[in-house]
Amino acid sequence: MFSFSLEHQEKNSQARLGLIRTAHGEIRTPVFMPVGTQGTVKALTPEDLVSLEVPIILANTYHLYLRPGHDRIRRLGGLHRFMHWDRPLLTDSGGYQVFSLGALRKITPEGVSFRSHLDGSSHFLTPELAMEIQAALGSDIAMCLDECPPYPATYEYACSSLELTLNWARRCRQARAGEGQALFGIVQGGVFPDLRRESAAALREIGFDGYALGGLSVGEPPEERLETIARTLPLLPADRPRYLMGLGTPEDLVEGVERGADMFDCVLPTRNARNGMLFTRRGEISIKNAAYAEDPGPIDPECGCYTCRNYSRAYLRHLYLAKELLSYRLHTWHNLYYFMELMQEIRQAVANDRFEDFKTTFYLQRKES
Amino acid sequence: MFSFSLEHQEKNSQARLGLIRTAHGEIRTPVFMPVGTQGTVKALTPEDLVSLEVPIILANTYHLYLRPGHDRIRRLGGLHRFMHWDRPLLTDSGGYQVFSLGALRKITPEGVSFRSHLDGSSHFLTPELAMEIQAALGSDIAMCLDECPPYPATYEYACSSLELTLNWARRCRQARAGEGQALFGIVQGGVFPDLRRESAAALREIGFDGYALGGLSVGEPPEERLETIARTLPLLPADRPRYLMGLGTPEDLVEGVERGADMFDCVLPTRNARNGMLFTRRGEISIKNAAYAEDPGPIDPECGCYTCRNYSRAYLRHLYLAKELLSYRLHTWHNLYYFMELMQEIRQAVANDRFEDFKTTFYLQRKES
Repeated sequence: MFSFSLEHQEKNSQARLGLIRTAHGEIRTPVFMPVGTQGTVKALTPEDLVSLEVPIILANTYHLYLRPGHDRIRRLGGLHRFMHWDRPLLTDSGGYQVFSLGALRKITPEGVSFRSHLDGSSHFLTPELAMEIQAALGSDIAMCLDECPPYPATYEYACSSLELTLNWARRCRQARAGEGQALFGIVQGGVFPDLRRESAAALREIGFDGYALGGLSVGEPPEERLETIARTLPLLPADRPRYLMGLGTPEDLVEGVERGADMFDCVLPTRNARNGMLFTRRGEISIKNAAYAEDPGPIDPECGCYTCRNYSRAYLRHLYLAKELLSYRLHTWHNLYYFMELMQEIRQAVANDRFEDFKTTFYLQRKES
Repeated sequence: MFSFSLEHQEKNSQARLGLIRTAHGEIRTPVFMPVGTQGTVKALTPEDLVSLEVPIILANTYHLYLRPGHDRIRRLGGLHRFMHWDRPLLTDSGGYQVFSLGALRKITPEGVSFRSHLDGSSHFLTPELAMEIQAALGSDIAMCLDECPPYPATYEYACSSLELTLNWARRCRQARAGEGQALFGIVQGGVFPDLRRESAAALREIGFDGYALGGLSVGEPPEERLETIARTLPLLPADRPRYLMGLGTPEDLVEGVERGADMFDCVLPTRNARNGMLFTRRGEISIKNAAYAEDPGPIDPECGCYTCRNYSRAYLRHLYLAKELLSYRLHTWHNLYYFMELMQEIRQAVANDRFEDFKTTFYLQRKES
């Protein structure tokens, strides 16, 4: 079971509101999806995520395939039950992580062979296996296996890479997703407008439940990234969700929504939390800053999260410097609260056709820091 | 504000029920105190501890003195406010950690000089400084600075060590605890009955709000330890709490209560949790055991804790092997739940004058594993 309905199209931009329905619940878009790489959003329980009003999380096929293994998770009742999360789940295809292995992997038309980062064992990931793994995990939304070309890439490389990705997309569609599982295609083509156009058109012809924009934030200049997003999203069907993969600075979310994106994922809020980098409306702060050593105030006086209501910067700095486990949890809570509140404000602004005002205030506040 | 009332003396053993009143709340004894070394019980929030019905925790003077510094904590309103914990707190004197530094410390009659394990800086801990630090932290119960002789120690060494400890106890009493802070003396004397007797008598003469038994679990045979506990506790005033320092296996708690101990602390449940060692009524299990790889059952089918209600051994093993932060939290929750439930059952058994039955069942269950 999967459906998307476009609820509102903003008057002055491409920003839009939507509602995704899955067997595990509804998701109001635009939405940010925290990453739970190994079947857990690091340092938080599912109950914490529910308190934070997180409607959907992402899990990584590559990691779960290697450990504890997708067959094991299937035998244990699927990923939802395994990790005690009953809201929607999206799984990636494993491709991105495999391509990140560099010298440890080799691409062929059939698939990609690689060595595990855990034990060096050899594996061969094909579009069919990517679908099989995701079906075993039982995610609500599965992704096609694609190749994400590096930046810069020659036109020739981007061209043949796209051909491979489209071929794999057809094979994924053919292999079919699991029972009740939605399947999203991924638009590639680097920063070449004609390739992005070709990619979007070909995927539409194959037909998917949703469409993602991949291959961004791989080193290209921000202007080229925004230009690619602005040009490509309108080529995708308006009645399907549009997912901007791997982008997740607060600015990325605002700019992406303005150009018509519905879904986002990124490790940024959770990873930065563990590094003591905390988001506020006035920009990011580093909790280890000596200026906070005796600061009795919260991370962000404008924030209403559990961490800001109960702990001082001085205490959080102490926990961070002492490498205390509670540090990771309190920081992750705060950063995700910030991201969830930001998305809520974005949705409200879109609903009121006031997205431009929202964006102006958003950037003004950041300049005041 | 501090008081202790003896509520019930068990008919068939030295076990007893008591009630400690402090400015931060009441504590029913016998009680187990989890350790929050650096101003946090590792991986848990204060709200978690309240859910677990933890009435009091211990914090370490040595660690907090070095980082973030007791003066800093005082300026930030004391340790309760600093760490967001409004229930009772006990602080140790810092002595035990300093003596554990081995070659890095040197004892004189005046105090003990040592080098920080963090940065090698030089420090000199005296009874007066131990009291000053604990007053700055603002704990409800402070401990005297003592020397904990190693095992085995010669009678001569134990004798002169005891003299030092008694002298320091007098200086601690003289220096006085913080406003409203209780001060406990610590009985030393190794495994020598006459020295323990002398120590207890001298401390009673000085007069303290409570009395601890120190210097145990340092390598002495279990029989000698139990013998020392059994012989020494009755030498302490019945109308004051008796604290058995640093002992904390489930067996230690049962045997200690039987011999008249009211308070316990130990890093065992929290440290073992982080090492994947989990307590059950049938004994400890190691979650990394390959037998649990596809085990859909909880850690302990007889346990009602959050972790056991929601997560399988298979998932917990996965989290542990993947070194996921959630692992430490879920395991710590389980182990502390076990310890809190054990103490609750102990108190119930004492209240019903059925401690012997309880103890028989306790050991029978462990044999069945």
